[in-house]
Amino acid sequence: MKVGIIGLGYWGPNLLRNFLAQPDVTKVTGCDLNPSRIKSNKLKFPNAEFTEDYDQILKGDTDLVVIATPVATHYPLAKTALENGKHIWVEKPFTASVNEAIDLIETAERKNLNIFVDHTFIYNGAVIKLKELVDKGELGNILYFDSERINLGLFQKDVNVVWDLAPHDLSIMLHLMNQKPKSITATGIANFNGMENLAHICVYFENNCFAHFHVNWTSPVKIRRMIVGGDKKMVVYDDMENMEKIKVYDSGIDIKSTEKIHEALVQYRIGDMYSPKVIQVEALSLAARECLDAIKENRLPKTSGYDGLEVVKILEASDRSIKNMGQIIELADLISA
Amino acid sequence: MKVGIIGLGYWGPNLLRNFLAQPDVTKVTGCDLNPSRIKSNKLKFPNAEFTEDYDQILKGDTDLVVIATPVATHYPLAKTALENGKHIWVEKPFTASVNEAIDLIETAERKNLNIFVDHTFIYNGAVIKLKELVDKGELGNILYFDSERINLGLFQKDVNVVWDLAPHDLSIMLHLMNQKPKSITATGIANFNGMENLAHICVYFENNCFAHFHVNWTSPVKIRRMIVGGDKKMVVYDDMENMEKIKVYDSGIDIKSTEKIHEALVQYRIGDMYSPKVIQVEALSLAARECLDAIKENRLPKTSGYDGLEVVKILEASDRSIKNMGQIIELADLISA
Amino acid sequence: MKVGIIGLGYWGPNLLRNFLAQPDVTKVTGCDLNPSRIKSNKLKFPNAEFTEDYDQILKGDTDLVVIATPVATHYPLAKTALENGKHIWVEKPFTASVNEAIDLIETAERKNLNIFVDHTFIYNGAVIKLKELVDKGELGNILYFDSERINLGLFQKDVNVVWDLAPHDLSIMLHLMNQKPKSITATGIANFNGMENLAHICVYFENNCFAHFHVNWTSPVKIRRMIVGGDKKMVVYDDMENMEKIKVYDSGIDIKSTEKIHEALVQYRIGDMYSPKVIQVEALSLAARECLDAIKENRLPKTSGYDGLEVVKILEASDRSIKNMGQIIELADLISA
Amino acid sequence: MKVGIIGLGYWGPNLLRNFLAQPDVTKVTGCDLNPSRIKSNKLKFPNAEFTEDYDQILKGDTDLVVIATPVATHYPLAKTALENGKHIWVEKPFTASVNEAIDLIETAERKNLNIFVDHTFIYNGAVIKLKELVDKGELGNILYFDSERINLGLFQKDVNVVWDLAPHDLSIMLHLMNQKPKSITATGIANFNGMENLAHICVYFENNCFAHFHVNWTSPVKIRRMIVGGDKKMVVYDDMENMEKIKVYDSGIDIKSTEKIHEALVQYRIGDMYSPKVIQVEALSLAARECLDAIKENRLPKTSGYDGLEVVKILEASDRSIKNMGQIIELADLISA
Repeated sequence: MKVGIIGLGYWGPNLLRNFLAQPDVTKVTGCDLNPSRIKSNKLKFPNAEFTEDYDQILKGDTDLVVIATPVATHYPLAKTALENGKHIWVEKPFTASVNEAIDLIETAERKNLNIFVDHTFIYNGAVIKLKELVDKGELGNILYFDSERINLGLFQKDVNVVWDLAPHDLSIMLHLMNQKPKSITATGIANFNGMENLAHICVYFENNCFAHFHVNWTSPVKIRRMIVGGDKKMVVYDDMENMEKIKVYDSGIDIKSTEKIHEALVQYRIGDMYSPKVIQVEALSLAARECLDAIKENRLPKTSGYDGLEVVKILEASDRSIKNMGQIIELADLISA
Repeated sequence: MKVGIIGLGYWGPNLLRNFLAQPDVTKVTGCDLNPSRIKSNKLKFPNAEFTEDYDQILKGDTDLVVIATPVATHYPLAKTALENGKHIWVEKPFTASVNEAIDLIETAERKNLNIFVDHTFIYNGAVIKLKELVDKGELGNILYFDSERINLGLFQKDVNVVWDLAPHDLSIMLHLMNQKPKSITATGIANFNGMENLAHICVYFENNCFAHFHVNWTSPVKIRRMIVGGDKKMVVYDDMENMEKIKVYDSGIDIKSTEKIHEALVQYRIGDMYSPKVIQVEALSLAARECLDAIKENRLPKTSGYDGLEVVKILEASDRSIKNMGQIIELADLISA
Repeated sequence: MKVGIIGLGYWGPNLLRNFLAQPDVTKVTGCDLNPSRIKSNKLKFPNAEFTEDYDQILKGDTDLVVIATPVATHYPLAKTALENGKHIWVEKPFTASVNEAIDLIETAERKNLNIFVDHTFIYNGAVIKLKELVDKGELGNILYFDSERINLGLFQKDVNVVWDLAPHDLSIMLHLMNQKPKSITATGIANFNGMENLAHICVYFENNCFAHFHVNWTSPVKIRRMIVGGDKKMVVYDDMENMEKIKVYDSGIDIKSTEKIHEALVQYRIGDMYSPKVIQVEALSLAARECLDAIKENRLPKTSGYDGLEVVKILEASDRSIKNMGQIIELADLISA
Repeated sequence: MKVGIIGLGYWGPNLLRNFLAQPDVTKVTGCDLNPSRIKSNKLKFPNAEFTEDYDQILKGDTDLVVIATPVATHYPLAKTALENGKHIWVEKPFTASVNEAIDLIETAERKNLNIFVDHTFIYNGAVIKLKELVDKGELGNILYFDSERINLGLFQKDVNVVWDLAPHDLSIMLHLMNQKPKSITATGIANFNGMENLAHICVYFENNCFAHFHVNWTSPVKIRRMIVGGDKKMVVYDDMENMEKIKVYDSGIDIKSTEKIHEALVQYRIGDMYSPKVIQVEALSLAARECLDAIKENRLPKTSGYDGLEVVKILEASDRSIKNMGQIIELADLISA
């Protein structure tokens, strides 16, 4: 397998390092329009090759094109790669619009090529454990999902805080739930350069389940925390904890049947807590492995274009909802549009 | 001053104790329809008097009637007290509707009587310090206010989580801001008995400021946290901390003018943090003092019926918005309704 | 049972309240030389009787004399009570010296009376859970015990920080271990009034087990934390945590046999953690119950004079060791002295 | 300047990277007896040279020999380097004994060469800030120093936990204090392979100041915390905190003069806390810079052989004291020995 990586910014060196470490990858080529980035990566990765010409990657002998450029360029680069018969790996968020995502998925299917969307957190030890807990029914039915990802962060020039931070949490939520969201409402505020720096997204599901996401670039404290509330147990996933990232609470709400209607029907219960050990393997190395294996086995990867599309739907809907002060957006309407 | 307290539930004994401790209160009478509550309070407060007949309080020689009953009964009790020439103290939330609140305010003004609404947190040392910081301009312009009040809590029989928990945070927010909210949008979910157990409220202000409130009875962890983001400094108020409840961060966003438009315009800055000492006096004792002083001085108390009304507006609007999946509600429309 | 309580200082009202609540206690009499203390307690506890004359307690119709006075007065009061045929409850530390403790134990045995020493923490839910874990072998062999009890605290006039704070942790440690300590060494410093305000005590056991205690009145932060290291599991008990006071770590050291001697013999292992639910009953109420039951059943209570003596041995030895800059003191030598 | 680094274990790559980054370093040669370590470092650092023959470093054209080997080999390597006219950088702990340290210092002085001991923490932003606070008198007189460095750690084959972990904290303490320690007492326990895995060191100073160090390889939780108690302010340095590593408490003890002797003489005071911003530069890069500058300017570096010697004195005394169950050791006696 020959891998070409376009875009050597913040995430590029991690991609280079991880693809170089895969035993079945025979060549890794890095590409960036900025010569100084090529120079610094050349020093760190003497085994990789480098070019400033992305057509060499998109049209050369590459098997897999990794796209790690600003989101607005994902679609044209990915489209060209697919049309030249390359499998693609695209950084999150998959595309800048639902229509772009659908077009890429259709193109890949027509050409029998693979799309891998880099929702890295799906390969993170804590999320793997969370998924395990949900799937074996330890939490019972999921009542709600609440996520907070806030800190003092660099403003992105091209996207607002929703497109920058929410894809992580949206992809985790969609991965855990065994159903699709129905509609969303979002609110936010742009205090500085016209891009929202703080936003809240609420997601409704069919069966009375509800999810909420708080993203913020202007918080004095850094919080990375998720609560998954089940009717049997509840989990808190705190990514700022060094050791105990996942805590499972045998706590919850009990509904007692009672003769006197409306009296003490609902009671709470506090039990033990436990914090399972979480595997420590680098998520990106598991992601690279899954991408390559899926290509070899000619199957959808765990995080395919379809997963990327679901996230982009919510992002696009959020922008629309924020502009209309929390207007409800049916996700189904995005496609027919 | 003679004080009569109606409702000796959870909060009643605190009210008894604090009014008994005021030097200018000559008589405190507790009242409840439940004889066992009267019995247990009699043991604890041998200096107080007790009755099961609330008309004795509402129509007797009481100067101040303290109403600590379920919210649905606030209006009839308060109305009777005012019409019998008594000043009133009403537990939060002030009333069950905007119309009730307006009617009580008008009645009190006509009869030249005082309404005190027990937004106890306004008298809490941490909130007093927060208000001081905001008023002396240490935070600069307030960009946003974010509040979280979640835990595993007893379900109320008569109200949802918004009416139970949000009045605390709404009253703090309104106290800190020097402007009135314009509109709100709210979402939530009722997983058990038809009453919302989890909700989010977003509040819009005129000048691009934004507030958000998360209240939840079904969280496995207890969080009581507020962030006030200013354009100069930012504050985190964590009520679960034993000592350092207030932290002031000299951190924020700097906007640099630059020739290259769209490049590095917005940067973040991290500086020192400090945690000011907070006074430790019991908030309810300061509240009782303020209520009595305002009556004596014939002036509005710090937490008057007007403050109670502003909170009730948002509560009523939230119910309406939740039912319509986040529909925007203009607060001005509630009154004319 | 008639109970007389001598000393109505900080702890006195808690004793009054808890003995008044025991169903088999027919009379509780409070006693203090200070009339203002009697006055304030009379208001709070209208069902108790009060006297300024301690002979009324020591020589009257009392069955159980509760001694909650400064430690220097424990011995004379306790001795008189025993000689007048009363059972005794003595606050921690039991006595001001080993000799006093031994004399009281001998007197009580001669007169067939009970001594209860108020090591309240033994009746605390977290310690009960800890004891359960140790006794069922979940931790394996205990390797070490490490305790920290530090804060900014009121200086006691009559005792140093060791006599004030260490009895709590020493009593817990002795309760958990199924063996007696052999020798101790202690160090400390007196920065202010000649009384040590900071001290460290190290305790040696026969079988290579080791315990350490840090007590400090001059710490800017409050820490109440114990680590119990077993060769199977390890426990952290953090009394400052609201909910998760006890954490059990399936972590530890594994010894691998290997051909290459001295290579990788000792490895560490990190596994799951869990935090068991802890009962929330007030410790002092369980203590009062145990004291009364032991008298009725004519048996030693869980915290008897013998337990008090073991703590006093370490306290007396610590004073001696601190004065000699950490000199080792054999506990057996204290008795023969 | 030509730099040769002997020992490419855990710390070696950091040394390579940091010396390669110094502009006045023209050549960096890495050396290890283990070819696989050379191979892996060669890949990472294509600009460095490598050799398996340490005589090439010790006797070649090197200006500065960096010794990052097990402590038992520090002395022979350092001695040879000095005798061949090389400046030396030695990892902590400086040597395996006081006599070795003295001999190296004398050799270096005779040959007018520099010894740099790598007490890296002295160049850490938090410690730089701490030193600044102490030196400008913000804490007042230092009353005590308390340090805890515990975790579940790899057992070293050649040294106990004192020689492995304590040098960090001892070097920080000696750096902050403007006086030398007088005597020490230490206790510990060896539960596994004959090497102490847990130890406590107490250090006495002339003026009633006291320091304590807890080091432990067998703790289920990781703690890296120091308290410096001054008579004006107190500081907590928590290295596990992401942002607020240093907290300065305007809290302490006030001594009131009073007519009634022994009454309320000593009171505590709680004031504001603040957490100063700490510089984020990598400590090792500042250390490398200081080492090279000191050589160029022909002066003692901030962490010289003398500083290394003071730490080794306490380590050697601790071993002796632990073997004698806390026996007091006068540090002056170590030299004449």
